[in-house]
Amino acid sequence: MQSLPFYPQGFRSCAKNIGIRDTTLDFTVIASDVPAAAAAMFTQSRFCGAAITVGREHVTDGQLQAFVINSKNANVSTGAQGLANIREIVQLVADELHIAPQDVLPSSTGVIGWQLPMDKVRAGIRGFGTDMREGQLHVSAHAIMTTDTRPKLHARKIGDAVLVGMAKGVGMIEPNMATMLSYFVTDARIPADQLKQCLQEVVNLTFNMVSVDTDTSTSDTVAIMANGLAGEVPLADFRQALLEMATELARDIARDGEGATKLLEVTVEHAASFEQAKRVAKSIVNSPLVKTAIFGTDPNWGRVAMAIGKCSEYTDIVPEKVSIAFGDLLLFQGDAVDQVDLAQLKAYLHNSEVTIHVSLGIGDARATVWGCDLSYEYVRINGEYTT
Amino acid sequence: MQSLPFYPQGFRSCAKNIGIRDTTLDFTVIASDVPAAAAAMFTQSRFCGAAITVGREHVTDGQLQAFVINSKNANVSTGAQGLANIREIVQLVADELHIAPQDVLPSSTGVIGWQLPMDKVRAGIRGFGTDMREGQLHVSAHAIMTTDTRPKLHARKIGDAVLVGMAKGVGMIEPNMATMLSYFVTDARIPADQLKQCLQEVVNLTFNMVSVDTDTSTSDTVAIMANGLAGEVPLADFRQALLEMATELARDIARDGEGATKLLEVTVEHAASFEQAKRVAKSIVNSPLVKTAIFGTDPNWGRVAMAIGKCSEYTDIVPEKVSIAFGDLLLFQGDAVDQVDLAQLKAYLHNSEVTIHVSLGIGDARATVWGCDLSYEYVRINGEYTT
Repeated sequence: MQSLPFYPQGFRSCAKNIGIRDTTLDFTVIASDVPAAAAAMFTQSRFCGAAITVGREHVTDGQLQAFVINSKNANVSTGAQGLANIREIVQLVADELHIAPQDVLPSSTGVIGWQLPMDKVRAGIRGFGTDMREGQLHVSAHAIMTTDTRPKLHARKIGDAVLVGMAKGVGMIEPNMATMLSYFVTDARIPADQLKQCLQEVVNLTFNMVSVDTDTSTSDTVAIMANGLAGEVPLADFRQALLEMATELARDIARDGEGATKLLEVTVEHAASFEQAKRVAKSIVNSPLVKTAIFGTDPNWGRVAMAIGKCSEYTDIVPEKVSIAFGDLLLFQGDAVDQVDLAQLKAYLHNSEVTIHVSLGIGDARATVWGCDLSYEYVRINGEYTT
Repeated sequence: MQSLPFYPQGFRSCAKNIGIRDTTLDFTVIASDVPAAAAAMFTQSRFCGAAITVGREHVTDGQLQAFVINSKNANVSTGAQGLANIREIVQLVADELHIAPQDVLPSSTGVIGWQLPMDKVRAGIRGFGTDMREGQLHVSAHAIMTTDTRPKLHARKIGDAVLVGMAKGVGMIEPNMATMLSYFVTDARIPADQLKQCLQEVVNLTFNMVSVDTDTSTSDTVAIMANGLAGEVPLADFRQALLEMATELARDIARDGEGATKLLEVTVEHAASFEQAKRVAKSIVNSPLVKTAIFGTDPNWGRVAMAIGKCSEYTDIVPEKVSIAFGDLLLFQGDAVDQVDLAQLKAYLHNSEVTIHVSLGIGDARATVWGCDLSYEYVRINGEYTT
């Protein structure tokens, strides 16, 4: 595991295996030495996990001091028992850290519909407080992984402060007003209300623009703590750093999508609104027929036209105004079909990043989304997940 | 090819290869000896094919006398040239049959973005009028196939009249207010306005409830001709026969979904409205994670909870009121997690038909949708489609 080049002040962490399902890392705690300004966004799923219910309560006052995350079990569809279990975990973690339980934000990710093995969890939590160390966030980025093939972790400086962000998630990825699991910590001083606004703006341009498979997780959480130990930084600089880091993490997630062999970036411009641009871009990036064609390097660009066409609620979209390009290769423009060089398109599709550019020719709005191709490996991973 | 046990009076057809892409059947005409009452529904795609534009014009007056259908090329995204080509085809067919061109409804299905090879088409159409025969509709059902593995064709009697229906389509299947290609002919006498209403009601309960891959075709068409040669039949009997036949064809399409190994039937009941029941059922039947789990016989029923949960616009859906069953096996009910026998669920998933029953516990509405599993073969078929 590769450690980070620099760390924010006053954050300690610990990651371990507590035997939830196998012997790999499945439990981590990230804590600030002092109470931190905090914000979080969660899944809009009607079947959200028990940890989401508790996390929503605890972040309401804009202050947190620790994240506790387990992988291998999502604690979803587990009823009253599941809720009691996560509240007990939060209390045990707070006791170990000598902090208030309402300053702990929990997350759980993994299989839906199974109760947590609480005997193992209690034994695993006991005494971890003495193992909390600085400089160990890269181990936490491993502990939150499920079918991820690599950790997703970034650090950058903002003046004297440092921002670190991590994420997990490669399947059940179409966040809706929230995201997969992602955590940011910084020692910059940012008031809680500004932190919340900043997080919402950034998430809507980054994590909410990713889709691996159109399936929205029951456990999506993105959360940030700013403990202020490095003092104030310009808010615009902080927002820009958060935006760039979240964009990198969003691309990391798409590139590591279950079974993915290629990162797919779709930009729709000259749309009537951001919502329209996003809807059309998502329609393309989520089309199983577009995704399989890109996996198979089949130059079947007409499927992009199909995916635009199925956004039938937008009657202002007319083929005569639309253009479609892959990379620099213009394939469709208005009502004319150019001499398309399919061999050139096929060659382009061998790249590990495929960019699709669509202009709707209506207005000034644009949106970029990220996804991945659909491969045999996606089917294998998800046909064998619990067995 | 198996012929039908009985045929409606006064319908002739012919099917042949005209060399659009290979040497398999790719062209068929189905015609009535006399002008027939007619109705049709089409894709809502904003990138609809040229044939759709012409078909919409020609069915407006409630009268048709022939269907002409080519496979292997969808004639979509082909601009003004594509439209001129399909109008020429309609004119050539009308000339051969000595009928009015505005009584011909054309359809094209296949690759998007390629112009039709008109020299071959003209040569292929020349003289086919003398090949029109009764009792050959089963050959037409073959000629409209693309990646279908088998024809989809049914016949039944309604009093003295006969109704025959056929369909094609196994990919790019999530019809929206219309369907894949499907044609019905009957010698019953049904006025055009009643025929239209009947068709709309039936399509909304059958073809519009099928999804193979969430991708809506640019070429969806369902059309019916009733030439009246067998006289009147009770409208209720006719509607019931059409409903049952369309249900059979919808199930045929789902069962033959690209790469499918299993038919998936999802019923959502006790919903607040038909729209809600349909939305939740479609969310389940379209979830790649549900589909791959069923392919792999992985007893991961929690993914059904996930798929219900992502219908987040319905805040009246709460897990406490929901139940989930596979076949007769109840897996989730309210906030309680029963002792789930995952081995029994795994055994059930080996069936070639998998039924999922969800109750939302809110109201009285219900909906049934059909789909299929997601297999390696879907990825292979669609990664290699044009190459």
